[in-house]
Amino acid sequence: MEAEKWKEFEGIFNPRSVAIIGAKTTDDFTNAMMATKMRDHLFFVNPNYKELYGRKCFASVLDIEDPIDYAVIAIPALVLPKVLKECIEKGVKTAHAFTAGFSETGLEERIKLEDEVRRIVKGGIRLIGPNCMGIYCPKSGLSFSPLAPPDEGPIGVISQSGTFAGLFSTTGKIKNLKFSKVVSYGNAIDLDCPDFIEYLADDPETEIIALYMEGSRDGERLKAALGEATKKKPVVALKGGVTEHGSRAASSHTGSLAGSPEIWSALFNQTGVIQVETFSELIDAVLPFIRSPLPAGKGVSMITSSGGLSVIETDLCVKVGLEVPGFEDETLNELKRIVPAAGTIMGNPLDAWPLYYNTSDTSGTLYHAIKVIALDRNIHSLILHFDELAYFRHVLGEGLEAHLKKLIDLMIDGCQYVRDEVGKPVIICVELDPYSEDEEDRRHHLMVKKAFEKKQFPVYATLDASIKALFNLYRYARREGF
Amino acid sequence: MEAEKWKEFEGIFNPRSVAIIGAKTTDDFTNAMMATKMRDHLFFVNPNYKELYGRKCFASVLDIEDPIDYAVIAIPALVLPKVLKECIEKGVKTAHAFTAGFSETGLEERIKLEDEVRRIVKGGIRLIGPNCMGIYCPKSGLSFSPLAPPDEGPIGVISQSGTFAGLFSTTGKIKNLKFSKVVSYGNAIDLDCPDFIEYLADDPETEIIALYMEGSRDGERLKAALGEATKKKPVVALKGGVTEHGSRAASSHTGSLAGSPEIWSALFNQTGVIQVETFSELIDAVLPFIRSPLPAGKGVSMITSSGGLSVIETDLCVKVGLEVPGFEDETLNELKRIVPAAGTIMGNPLDAWPLYYNTSDTSGTLYHAIKVIALDRNIHSLILHFDELAYFRHVLGEGLEAHLKKLIDLMIDGCQYVRDEVGKPVIICVELDPYSEDEEDRRHHLMVKKAFEKKQFPVYATLDASIKALFNLYRYARREGF
Repeated sequence: MEAEKWKEFEGIFNPRSVAIIGAKTTDDFTNAMMATKMRDHLFFVNPNYKELYGRKCFASVLDIEDPIDYAVIAIPALVLPKVLKECIEKGVKTAHAFTAGFSETGLEERIKLEDEVRRIVKGGIRLIGPNCMGIYCPKSGLSFSPLAPPDEGPIGVISQSGTFAGLFSTTGKIKNLKFSKVVSYGNAIDLDCPDFIEYLADDPETEIIALYMEGSRDGERLKAALGEATKKKPVVALKGGVTEHGSRAASSHTGSLAGSPEIWSALFNQTGVIQVETFSELIDAVLPFIRSPLPAGKGVSMITSSGGLSVIETDLCVKVGLEVPGFEDETLNELKRIVPAAGTIMGNPLDAWPLYYNTSDTSGTLYHAIKVIALDRNIHSLILHFDELAYFRHVLGEGLEAHLKKLIDLMIDGCQYVRDEVGKPVIICVELDPYSEDEEDRRHHLMVKKAFEKKQFPVYATLDASIKALFNLYRYARREGF
Repeated sequence: MEAEKWKEFEGIFNPRSVAIIGAKTTDDFTNAMMATKMRDHLFFVNPNYKELYGRKCFASVLDIEDPIDYAVIAIPALVLPKVLKECIEKGVKTAHAFTAGFSETGLEERIKLEDEVRRIVKGGIRLIGPNCMGIYCPKSGLSFSPLAPPDEGPIGVISQSGTFAGLFSTTGKIKNLKFSKVVSYGNAIDLDCPDFIEYLADDPETEIIALYMEGSRDGERLKAALGEATKKKPVVALKGGVTEHGSRAASSHTGSLAGSPEIWSALFNQTGVIQVETFSELIDAVLPFIRSPLPAGKGVSMITSSGGLSVIETDLCVKVGLEVPGFEDETLNELKRIVPAAGTIMGNPLDAWPLYYNTSDTSGTLYHAIKVIALDRNIHSLILHFDELAYFRHVLGEGLEAHLKKLIDLMIDGCQYVRDEVGKPVIICVELDPYSEDEEDRRHHLMVKKAFEKKQFPVYATLDASIKALFNLYRYARREGF
């Protein structure tokens, strides 16, 4: 990104002052930014109020004496042209139009209205939207949701959909995700997806870019931006509206021309973007990139406490495109010294339930098995599966909590050895049913989950998600030439 | 099934007395059946104890004076031949060998041991296993897990894997599943999968059969049994070990010869079995069969509160093999009277967020929209998506709980109309992250989930699961010729 444009975008994401036009005590933007550091640089505009949150509320942005860098506009569509003209007169640098009701309606007069807005902003002001949530940037305090956490982090998100931008920022807390910048850009009549890709690609605070889009006005520019970005950092993308019916839905949603699924797959493929299929896969794909080494090949080892699951785990791995190779003889011989033979499966996947019950310091623990497997030359990554806590409790009774703490330490020591010393990625699956109402069991599962998260391991609630996330990491590694 | 064989199997699943050979206070079988109606017909055998749970513990099954119908054998593999001979001498009709350590180890001497067991039982006793969990039958009180619920229901499960049999029975509570019979049959050296298929096919207490298998000794017999069963009731199956690596894992797990994935897919296809890909899909597939009408075509309508999700929902539907057709003009015109235009998407999927906020009795509610969509001739089934409760709470504050109760009533009234009066299936998605620790939000989600379950609607925590379950119902309907 050229120096001048870079400076402009730094300004967009880090405004010194914000006006909320259409502010109310009930709107999300007002509520969100009253809780961030932007609070002291926030101005309210709404002719219906004299005062909001004990501050003066202005009838027009033109009535504000202080300079305004950024305006959030949440007013009816038909008033947008007038308000934008006032913003330009005021010298506002960037406007974000939350307002919906333009080309996405499919109505002739609303398409014309969008054209009018396009003409007004051209050269006078930068516009994000309309029909979007705008920017969430924990560092500057710009925000679109009172539910978005204040922590800064390495993930940059560009989403055409406001819902997904919101979901990313609010589920961050649950999934241990922290963000540099999240932008929802909607109908994109001025600032468009490629602009944000260029900026986040150069942004030193962004380590990985997650992208949700439904269409593009300028395919060549998008392609160039993606191609440049993937030279600098991983880009994971979900394209909405890839099917014919989905494309019709996308057109109603953001007025996008969606294009055929093949064109999009080819675009992502050629530019080195990791394309995923669902929103949960997009969120899941991001996690391992934060801290994990890249796998040097397809070979996965899985450690589980169930033989039945090991068969399905293996099928799932192979179906997505990974491999579950047999261990080297040396590994098998070592494992035979660690894992009791009865009812276990001495192979890959390793069905090693007795190890989950052994927390002695001497030998025969998960820690020892993990260390042995880590050095197997057929194995390039590890999935550690954790479940059956209800059964643990049934066997161990009162002793479960203390046992679990020791077991967690053993597992984490082993996994840190694999990741940090041997340099192979580790994915943790702490299986948990969303509808489970066994609160004690939930608490124990979350205890294991959080212990691993604290050490920056990616944790998933299903094997399916664990395996897909590992595969996406592998796809990236393969592109990079291992 | 012939009358004589039927009688034999009724005896197997409904024994009048059970001996647990290798009983301890810590084993699952003892603990499980001490909590069922079998408690009063239970005998303990273990030479190491004089007494268990205040009852006499016998050194051998031969020392018991009462007749024994069924023996659970949980002793080391090498002792199994001797114990089985004693069971035969005692006149025990069925033995279930929990004991592992036979052909699945791949060891020459253990394969020979399995052959010896095969010779011993032939004609003298019926054997389930070895290397399996045996039977859970709430009606008779036979059980393999203290965690399995006592309720009877319409689902029959046949699983080669003990883990999956256990998972089915213990997650039943979470997922609103109730069982007629669950059997885990392991290495199947006598009673095999086709035997159990034949029995459950004729069992009037079983309305649907869920099957997990890793291989088969007699493909022709299996094919015949499946072909007959699907004439009588739906059969949903998961084949473990379909990939080369998975097949190796299956061989270590239950000693099965797995065969190629194509052979298995062809077998299921020819016999009318609905084949699924993962264990969670297997569990999910069962639910709609309990109560739902069958869809008369591919056309799905989805109602959601998010435009972004509607695009992805549509893609997901089309990718699995369903369709999300546009509404008829009549439907659109009706909907325009019900759904406010701003920020919504008047089409299919219907992005109708304002309706989730309207609980007035007059009009403009979800109830009204659902009723209109139900009659659209392009639409054969409905997915109702429910989420964003955290946002609801943010907007409604204290009023949320009361609002939710009214909204639930409106949604259920609408969905009952669709299912019970119009005769189209309805799938409910109450989206919930397994790792969410917002306990109030969880409680609200579960409130919605349980309200729908109470009316026997199938409820799923993800859109992906909802769509796959509906597709499996559709596949069955298509086979039946609608």
